Amino acid sequence: MIVQEDFPVQTFKAADYKATHFKWEVAGKVGTVTLNRPERKNPLTFESYAELRDLFLKLVYATDVKTVVVTGAGGNFCSGGDVHEIIGPLVRMQEAGDMPGLLAFTRMTGDLVKAMRHCPQPIIAAVDGICAGAGAIVAMASDLRIGTPRAKTAFLFVRVGLAGADMGACAILPRIIGQGRASELLYTGRSMSAEEADKWGFFNKVVSPDDVLAEAQTLAKELADGPTFAHGITKTCLHQEWSMDIDSAIEAEAQAQAICMQTKDYGRAYNAFVAKQKPVFEGN
Amino acid sequence: MIVQEDFPVQTFKAADYKATHFKWEVAGKVGTVTLNRPERKNPLTFESYAELRDLFLKLVYATDVKTVVVTGAGGNFCSGGDVHEIIGPLVRMQEAGDMPGLLAFTRMTGDLVKAMRHCPQPIIAAVDGICAGAGAIVAMASDLRIGTPRAKTAFLFVRVGLAGADMGACAILPRIIGQGRASELLYTGRSMSAEEADKWGFFNKVVSPDDVLAEAQTLAKELADGPTFAHGITKTCLHQEWSMDIDSAIEAEAQAQAICMQTKDYGRAYNAFVAKQKPVFEGN
Amino acid sequence: MIVQEDFPVQTFKAADYKATHFKWEVAGKVGTVTLNRPERKNPLTFESYAELRDLFLKLVYATDVKTVVVTGAGGNFCSGGDVHEIIGPLVRMQEAGDMPGLLAFTRMTGDLVKAMRHCPQPIIAAVDGICAGAGAIVAMASDLRIGTPRAKTAFLFVRVGLAGADMGACAILPRIIGQGRASELLYTGRSMSAEEADKWGFFNKVVSPDDVLAEAQTLAKELADGPTFAHGITKTCLHQEWSMDIDSAIEAEAQAQAICMQTKDYGRAYNAFVAKQKPVFEGN
Repeated sequence: MIVQEDFPVQTFKAADYKATHFKWEVAGKVGTVTLNRPERKNPLTFESYAELRDLFLKLVYATDVKTVVVTGAGGNFCSGGDVHEIIGPLVRMQEAGDMPGLLAFTRMTGDLVKAMRHCPQPIIAAVDGICAGAGAIVAMASDLRIGTPRAKTAFLFVRVGLAGADMGACAILPRIIGQGRASELLYTGRSMSAEEADKWGFFNKVVSPDDVLAEAQTLAKELADGPTFAHGITKTCLHQEWSMDIDSAIEAEAQAQAICMQTKDYGRAYNAFVAKQKPVFEGN
Repeated sequence: MIVQEDFPVQTFKAADYKATHFKWEVAGKVGTVTLNRPERKNPLTFESYAELRDLFLKLVYATDVKTVVVTGAGGNFCSGGDVHEIIGPLVRMQEAGDMPGLLAFTRMTGDLVKAMRHCPQPIIAAVDGICAGAGAIVAMASDLRIGTPRAKTAFLFVRVGLAGADMGACAILPRIIGQGRASELLYTGRSMSAEEADKWGFFNKVVSPDDVLAEAQTLAKELADGPTFAHGITKTCLHQEWSMDIDSAIEAEAQAQAICMQTKDYGRAYNAFVAKQKPVFEGN
Repeated sequence: MIVQEDFPVQTFKAADYKATHFKWEVAGKVGTVTLNRPERKNPLTFESYAELRDLFLKLVYATDVKTVVVTGAGGNFCSGGDVHEIIGPLVRMQEAGDMPGLLAFTRMTGDLVKAMRHCPQPIIAAVDGICAGAGAIVAMASDLRIGTPRAKTAFLFVRVGLAGADMGACAILPRIIGQGRASELLYTGRSMSAEEADKWGFFNKVVSPDDVLAEAQTLAKELADGPTFAHGITKTCLHQEWSMDIDSAIEAEAQAQAICMQTKDYGRAYNAFVAKQKPVFEGN
C-alpha cells in the first residue's frame, strides 16, 4: 500500500529546527516561538521577520508539531518593527526612491501573516505587556489569543506616518472585534487595553502574567492531543470561507467534513464512546 | 388581471402539514417545530434531518406561515446527531470506504442550513438546556435566538474526531460572535455558557426556561403581523450580501427596497401614519 | 517637476462651500455637517439627501478638509426621511406605478452612503437623541460614532412597511454589531439603546449631550493633524477589502503600505523619533 510517507514530498522535523533570531522550543507536539530581545521589548528585524515567515512555511510539512504558541520574553510580547533596524533603512529606501525595495519589505511582512494562516497548526498567542505594530499583527494573525491585565495592544502604524492597512489589518481586525472598533484602533493608533480586548473578543481569556505562557501551552497541548488532522481542516475552512457566499461555504464544509469522516480519529471517537472511554486521537 | 395565485407554481399550506419525525404546530401565521425525543435530549436522525430540510424547502411556497419557531421538548434544545442512529452508521460507511455515502450525508445536513437560510420566514430558535453539535448549528442557522440561563451551546464536532467545519459553522459563527471567539469554540468544542452567548451576541435575549418558548412565539407573532413580504426581502438581502462588496450591496438594496416601495404595506403604513392609526400589514 | 497640483483635475475648497439644506462649517482641517431642522428632529428631504451626497462626492477633491463630523441640531441626530416630504411623494409614485422614480430615489439614498465610504476623510458621527431610519444609516455609514446616554438608534424601515434592506444596512450593520444583533434590529425596527450601542460596538464612546459634539470635533482634529494621506489609504482598504479573501487583502495592503512608505510623513515620523520630538504631519 502506498501511503503519504512514501510520497517524495518535503517533510520537516520541527523538533530539530534551530532558530537563529528567536527562541524555538518543542515539547511533545507543541512548538513555542519566543521573541527574545527583552531589553528592547522584542522588536522584529528584517532577519526575524524572514525567519518567522520561513518557519511557518515549513510547518506545513511538519509531522511532529501540531500546535504553536507565540510569546515574548521578559514581560512583553513584541514592540513591532525595530525603529533603527527596520524603519531607518526603509526611510533611506524612500529617500533613494526604491519602490521595489519598499514593496519587497511589505510583501515579506504580509507573507508572514499568510504563512501563519496557511499552516495547519492552530496558533495561540500568549500576550503580556507591549504588543505593538507588527507585534499586534502577529497576535491578530494567530488563531487564539490569551492576554494579561497589563497587555497593551496597539496597531500604531498611523503614529509612524503610515496607514492602518498593514499586513491584512483592515481585513482581519474588523472580523475579530467589529468594524467600528477596528476603525477606531486603526485610525487613531491608540492602545487597546486588556479589558477592552477581553470584552471585544480580541483576547479569548485574560490571566495573570505568571500564568499566561503556561495557560497557552496547556491549551496548545489539549488541541495537539485532539484530532489534529481535523483541526487543520477547520483552519483551512476558516481561511477559505472568509469571503465565500454561505451556500458555497456549506458545500465546502460538506466536502471537508466528509474527508474527516474518512479519518481513523472519527472511528476512534465512536468506538471510545461506545466503550464508555475517552478517545485517544492520533491526528489521522 | 393575472396575479401570483394564477401561476402554476407549487403552493404549500403549512397548517395542513403533518410531521413524522418532530412536532409541527401552526398557530395563526406562526409555525413551531419541536424536536421531540426528550428522553434522549432530542437528537437528530437521518429521517428527522431529511424531514426538517424538506419542511424548510416547502416553506418557500407557504402562503399561511410567516415566521417559524424552532425549539426542543423537555428542557433541552437538541443533542445533535444521534450517536447510535447517525454516527454508528457513518463509521460503518467509513469502514466500507463509502465516500459517496458520507458526502451524501454531509450534503444533506448542509442542505438543511441552506433551506433555513433560503425560506422567506424569519426563524427564531428558543434554546433551553443542551444545544450541541447539529443542534448548535440549527440555532446558529436561525435568524434570531432566545436562550435560557441554563442553555449550553457546544459546537462539539472536534470531540467526535471531526472538524469544526460543519454545515457552514466556519463561515456563519464568526459573523455572529467574532472570529476569535468562534475559533475557540470550533477548535476546542467547549460549551458556550448562556452568559457568554448573551454577551457575545449569539443569543438576542436570555429569559427563564418557563418563558423561552412563549417569548419566541410572541416575537414570531409580532414579526408575522409586520410587513412579511418585506421581511422576506430583508432575509434575502442578509443572505445574498454576505460576501458582496459594499457598493454592490447598496445597489442590491436600492433595487430590493424599490420593490418593497411597490407593496401595499408601504401605502398602508403611510396612510395609517397620516390618520394617526397603527398600520395593519398584510404582507403584500 | 510636475506634481499633482498641475493636473487638470477638479479641486474643491471645502471651506468656501455654502450649504443650503444643512449647516456646513469648517474649522481648520475639520468640516462639520449639522442637520438643522431641530423642530422636526432634523429629517432628511429629497433636497438634503441630494446635497449631502454631492458634498461627500466633492470631498474626494478637497484639499483643505481632512476629517468630517456629522451631527444634528437641538438634541437629536436625525429622524430619517421626512414623512410628508419624502414618504408621501413616494407613496404617490407607487400609486402611479412609477418604478423608475422609486428606484431613482433608493439609488440616490444609496449614493449618499457610497459617497461617505468613498471620500478619503474619516467621518465621525456625533449622535444625540433620535437617530432613526436614514439617520441611523448615516451614523452607520460613518467611520466612527460617538453617542450620548439618551441616543436612540432605530433602523425602523419595517415600521413603515419596508425591508430592513436600506442603503446597505444588511451588509454593513452586521459587520459592526454582529449578524444576530443586526438581524434583530432590522427585522423588528426597535430602538437600540445607547447602552446596547456602546456594548455592541456601534458607538465607539458614549459621553454627555453637552460634550458629544466637542468630543467628536476634538477627535476629528486629532485625526486631521495625523498622516491624512495614510488615513485615506486606511479608509480605502477598509472599503475594498470588505469581501476580499485574506491573501488578496494582504497583497493589497502590501501595495498600499508601500505607497505610504513613499510619503514625506513617514520620513517626518522617523526623523522626529530620532530627534526625540513629536512628528508634525502634513498629509503628504
